[in-house]
Amino acid sequence: MNKDTQGTSDTESTGRSGQKTRDRILQKSLQLFNEQGERQVTTNHIAAALGISPGNLYYHFRNKEAIISELLLGYQHEILGLLEIPSDRPMQLADKFRYFQILSSQFWKYRFLHRDSNHLIESSAILKERYPVFARQVMQQGIRIYQGFVDAGLMRATAVEIEALIINIWIVMTSWSNFLLMTGHISQTDHIDERWLRQGFRQMVFLEAPYLMGDGLSAYEMLLQQFTGESGLGLWFGVDPIVSDGESRSD
Amino acid sequence: MNKDTQGTSDTESTGRSGQKTRDRILQKSLQLFNEQGERQVTTNHIAAALGISPGNLYYHFRNKEAIISELLLGYQHEILGLLEIPSDRPMQLADKFRYFQILSSQFWKYRFLHRDSNHLIESSAILKERYPVFARQVMQQGIRIYQGFVDAGLMRATAVEIEALIINIWIVMTSWSNFLLMTGHISQTDHIDERWLRQGFRQMVFLEAPYLMGDGLSAYEMLLQQFTGESGLGLWFGVDPIVSDGESRSD
Repeated sequence: MNKDTQGTSDTESTGRSGQKTRDRILQKSLQLFNEQGERQVTTNHIAAALGISPGNLYYHFRNKEAIISELLLGYQHEILGLLEIPSDRPMQLADKFRYFQILSSQFWKYRFLHRDSNHLIESSAILKERYPVFARQVMQQGIRIYQGFVDAGLMRATAVEIEALIINIWIVMTSWSNFLLMTGHISQTDHIDERWLRQGFRQMVFLEAPYLMGDGLSAYEMLLQQFTGESGLGLWFGVDPIVSDGESRSD
Repeated sequence: MNKDTQGTSDTESTGRSGQKTRDRILQKSLQLFNEQGERQVTTNHIAAALGISPGNLYYHFRNKEAIISELLLGYQHEILGLLEIPSDRPMQLADKFRYFQILSSQFWKYRFLHRDSNHLIESSAILKERYPVFARQVMQQGIRIYQGFVDAGLMRATAVEIEALIINIWIVMTSWSNFLLMTGHISQTDHIDERWLRQGFRQMVFLEAPYLMGDGLSAYEMLLQQFTGESGLGLWFGVDPIVSDGESRSD
């Protein structure tokens, strides 16, 4: 994780300061991709936002694809580290809350990767190669976590059920902003905000709820409350769901 | 449904024969979109495949968007008709199998609409307007159907659970080919075949399974068997899932 150890040689950015520039490019890119949508942001925008020359940016990353690919690797590394399973004790109820916390903050931090992911991998051979590895590793870790909850008596599920559950959770979470777009709840996938993210996690609570048992059951109500939020939003489809992020319909 | 009864003779296509040409354009477009992917198919391809002039096609549909929009309306009309709830009797176990049958055949028939749907609505103001209506109406009907199963004692679920379930089912089914693409199981969304479709419905069986009760429970095993198929495919992530639709990886 600490990248500030070694140097590269060049005119603009050598040694520690080069590494810092590289990190700054990644951080700024992530921010702009999240806020403005990856498609709208060019390497020139990123360089301008950092006050560096495009040439300096290209010294570190040969194109936008290389930046995105590096961000995906960072996401993968971070999330797998954070989703580690305690090696010295059985899983506990507190772990369930912890994992939800990790997932929601990581998801928010790298939300641009979960928007138009189809476009991302269609436009990049590197991402098309790396994304499946990322997806598989995170899902495999999810399977281990749920198996840990089963072993600890907090859930009841077979291996086949756990796998189906993980696949369903993965699809719902990674497709969530597209769902909001397709159903007219937001007008662009860039418009997802924390309220909508909470609703996505609320769907995940419903996905795993039927498998909870023992102390695990007590997590259900608490998580449901946490992700339902102050609006207490219950039913969606009794009311007109069309565009609710500030725009009005044309008809 | 049998559209191939007669040829159209003319350039202008009026009256009955005009209607037939219109229907033939829709049928052929649907076929080509499904087989080759909507992005790859132009109105010129469609006209050529039908042996009519582009001008004749434009007489009926001013562009590809108009054809897609009409197909979406047809899908909406068909599926809502087929998903009707019996008005003269309570729901029965047989209805559950019937609805699964309807959904899987309709999904297959209009599968191009469930592939790159994000692209579809982003490139068409009409579809962006119509798709949310379609989605909402089908989900609302799904809610009524599940409520019918609850009333008939085949399921146990609250209104809030039913709605969350319908949303999750909708997302999983409509994002299924994208999931297969993103996880490297297929190399293009056009490559989805019936085996993969069955796996998608298998995921849906797992989604509703926890809410089944009474006779409804007996549907679970039967549906699971039906959609698991001859491969008996159980766990996905114990094995390397990368591209399995006939292509080999480059590394």
